[in-house]
Amino acid sequence: MDPFVVVGGDAAGLSAASKCRRESDREVIVFEKGQWISYAHCGTPYFVEGSVDRLTDLLSLSPAEAEARGIDLRRGHEVVSVDAEDRTVTVRADGERFEQPYAELLVATGASAAAGPFDRSLDGVFSLHGLDDAAAIDAYLAAPDDYDPARLGDGPVDRDRVDHNAALEPPERAAIVGGGYVGVEMAEALSARGVDVHLYQRSAHLLTPFGAAVGERVESTLRDHGVTVHTDTEVDALVGDERVAALRIDGDERPVDVAILGVGIRPNTALLDGTGVDRGPSGAIKTDDYGRTSLPAVYAAGDVATARHAVTGAETWVPLGLTANRAGRAIGSTVAGDPTPVGDVAGTAVVKAFDLECGRVGLVDESAATDAGFDPVSETITAGSRSGYYPGNEETTVTLVADRTTGRVLGGSIVGRDRAAVRIDTLATAIEADLTVAELERLDLAYAPPFSPVWDPVLVAAKVVNGQLSE
Amino acid sequence: MDPFVVVGGDAAGLSAASKCRRESDREVIVFEKGQWISYAHCGTPYFVEGSVDRLTDLLSLSPAEAEARGIDLRRGHEVVSVDAEDRTVTVRADGERFEQPYAELLVATGASAAAGPFDRSLDGVFSLHGLDDAAAIDAYLAAPDDYDPARLGDGPVDRDRVDHNAALEPPERAAIVGGGYVGVEMAEALSARGVDVHLYQRSAHLLTPFGAAVGERVESTLRDHGVTVHTDTEVDALVGDERVAALRIDGDERPVDVAILGVGIRPNTALLDGTGVDRGPSGAIKTDDYGRTSLPAVYAAGDVATARHAVTGAETWVPLGLTANRAGRAIGSTVAGDPTPVGDVAGTAVVKAFDLECGRVGLVDESAATDAGFDPVSETITAGSRSGYYPGNEETTVTLVADRTTGRVLGGSIVGRDRAAVRIDTLATAIEADLTVAELERLDLAYAPPFSPVWDPVLVAAKVVNGQLSE
Repeated sequence: MDPFVVVGGDAAGLSAASKCRRESDREVIVFEKGQWISYAHCGTPYFVEGSVDRLTDLLSLSPAEAEARGIDLRRGHEVVSVDAEDRTVTVRADGERFEQPYAELLVATGASAAAGPFDRSLDGVFSLHGLDDAAAIDAYLAAPDDYDPARLGDGPVDRDRVDHNAALEPPERAAIVGGGYVGVEMAEALSARGVDVHLYQRSAHLLTPFGAAVGERVESTLRDHGVTVHTDTEVDALVGDERVAALRIDGDERPVDVAILGVGIRPNTALLDGTGVDRGPSGAIKTDDYGRTSLPAVYAAGDVATARHAVTGAETWVPLGLTANRAGRAIGSTVAGDPTPVGDVAGTAVVKAFDLECGRVGLVDESAATDAGFDPVSETITAGSRSGYYPGNEETTVTLVADRTTGRVLGGSIVGRDRAAVRIDTLATAIEADLTVAELERLDLAYAPPFSPVWDPVLVAAKVVNGQLSE
Repeated sequence: MDPFVVVGGDAAGLSAASKCRRESDREVIVFEKGQWISYAHCGTPYFVEGSVDRLTDLLSLSPAEAEARGIDLRRGHEVVSVDAEDRTVTVRADGERFEQPYAELLVATGASAAAGPFDRSLDGVFSLHGLDDAAAIDAYLAAPDDYDPARLGDGPVDRDRVDHNAALEPPERAAIVGGGYVGVEMAEALSARGVDVHLYQRSAHLLTPFGAAVGERVESTLRDHGVTVHTDTEVDALVGDERVAALRIDGDERPVDVAILGVGIRPNTALLDGTGVDRGPSGAIKTDDYGRTSLPAVYAAGDVATARHAVTGAETWVPLGLTANRAGRAIGSTVAGDPTPVGDVAGTAVVKAFDLECGRVGLVDESAATDAGFDPVSETITAGSRSGYYPGNEETTVTLVADRTTGRVLGGSIVGRDRAAVRIDTLATAIEADLTVAELERLDLAYAPPFSPVWDPVLVAAKVVNGQLSE
């Protein structure tokens, strides 16, 4: 039997390879075009910030560990084409090409940071997507005399790029372009590194998918911590000679000496160009409940693939870490002979902005809910995180969206300083279980003065939305 | 139409009265035999500890506020009997008796602390049930010269009892009898007041309903904070002349000068003695999905009443704050003309032990699950609370119990130092939604390095239990 071939050695790819090996004696080959495997992408802002000591602390599986699991791991191997009819891939390595037959193929090629209209070739302009970006930004932020390469740890880092950036004078004024996860997390990271941070967001609120209630509190928290936030502001260009010198907005130039681009990511689908594979939102590879693409014996998972939305039932593209790990693991089981669904996504996401914790799930935006065929009712409430008399009680703001016709919970967001983020899991569970707001209101949630008021903020929101529904 | 009469002015009673007034123009009379109304019972240990400044900070509704809601509140009025056929109650106040007709009656008489075999008339021996107990303990702990009556705030406290306790020499060595919520919380409170604390638990583990995994970590945390824990140790008696001097165990006497009894509570059902009302577990008043007792037009709610267990479907008695508030509110709606179920209980509970957070829900004990007709599979795992590389990551221990036959989640517990308690709400929601472990494992829960590893501890537990179920 031909092997199970995996393209991409990060979360989805290695989860699939590991699970398949654990559950079967199948031959599993993982082709990774780069040198890094299995790293925590979401941890890179915290490395830049300095709260993670070494770059290699972000690795979750070493090549030796992968091989010890019986995975045939080939780094520096780029899969350049797929012949889905013959069930072979063409691989390029060390300047040579070869054909590799497969019984099943998993495309787990991930995503790449978009550059938008910006010139990323200038010194001081960075995206943050992967460990080499993080290492380069870290080196650029340090004064040449202060830079400590021990921070890199012992991994296959692009040392030339690091050395180049370490040799440059450290920046004093940063522009962060984009107010999504990367933008908010890097605003905090660069502030911690002593840079004067300006954050530019094209739309009215930061963290758009979290809704206005979260966006407003994040903006105010960023300002409290010295970040200058520019909303409704579109950056037209980054200009400079070799090094970025300014950003241009409406013809004006504002000086900056570092710019971080957080303007979105795109699925790396080029490998399947010309195969006729079905695509979904954002051009991601369309997959079914078991992670199968429209090509025979070809699976896709992680940031390159779509998933089914738990609320709308529609194909969606929500490239996040758990989705990748979970889908990879399920596909590994399926290939090993135990068909396992990859699971829906609810769009659950959490992010930290200094001491503020933010969470969102499902359909938060009312117009998105309307577009999906619902009749949304949305309420935003503020309640305590603990009993009012207990020290450390913090205002917790919950937005809850439900369908007027069926009462079903559609989505929500939570923001606050005290254990706010993890409370979103209550809503995520309720949404995936198709609970109505009336059922949510009657949940027996935890109460003790140090952790929650008698009526948890989620229950308070449910009471208010349920009141609206019964009118 | 005769009024809606409520017996008891605490969580269940005043929730019902308030909701009924808000939703109708019904006449609502609340008879409260004491002077306090609507106080946060669960906050009393934190008043004793000193983290809540004033006793009256624990009040959530003042008599004036209750009256402003249109409630006819009669404090110092004890309802001494019910004639369910005539639909009247007999009330005693100021040495007089009178009859009060009702259209509907709510019995919300709460519970009382049990004394077990112990002599509570000795100075220095206390239960903790209500604000007067808290005030007395606080006064007893203070040196006569240091006692500050301003701590009492402006409420109807039993001042004679406070003054008596304040005049006594402060204790140096405490025995806490019973290792449940009250015992664990008071161990922390008395330690904060500088007393040498010994905690005695009859069974092998503290916090029995939370299971062994939680009990062991709580015990070790208490020891780390200087509390001496005696498990498998039964206290036979408290002895002393006027003031407690020692506890007796197996014939030995050990000196103590304060003893806190946390040996359970009993529902205050005496009012319905002789009415033939149906009883449930622990003798609590049996109620149906709408809080109705077996007597016509008589409801019961709060610590005096049973509720239906979300997992077993059986009558159960779990006297906790949210249950009381929720049932009262639902009965208020029902009486006002909008029939509203009181909701099941899942036995969700959380407790703090110094810096340790503990949660439990559903059926944690395997033999309880077996008794309820399930075939339980239970696994205990330890996972990080955050990404391993992120500062503040703490070991989080999860026990998950599921039914082998159906895969249904039956119960679980969580313990750890970092946001552990609120994570129990994920399990509570899953249990009330009848999810299977396979569904739990596929939930799209939140992930970001500061708040959770990629696989939340709850998901890790689900993976392991699910692995067991598929064997």
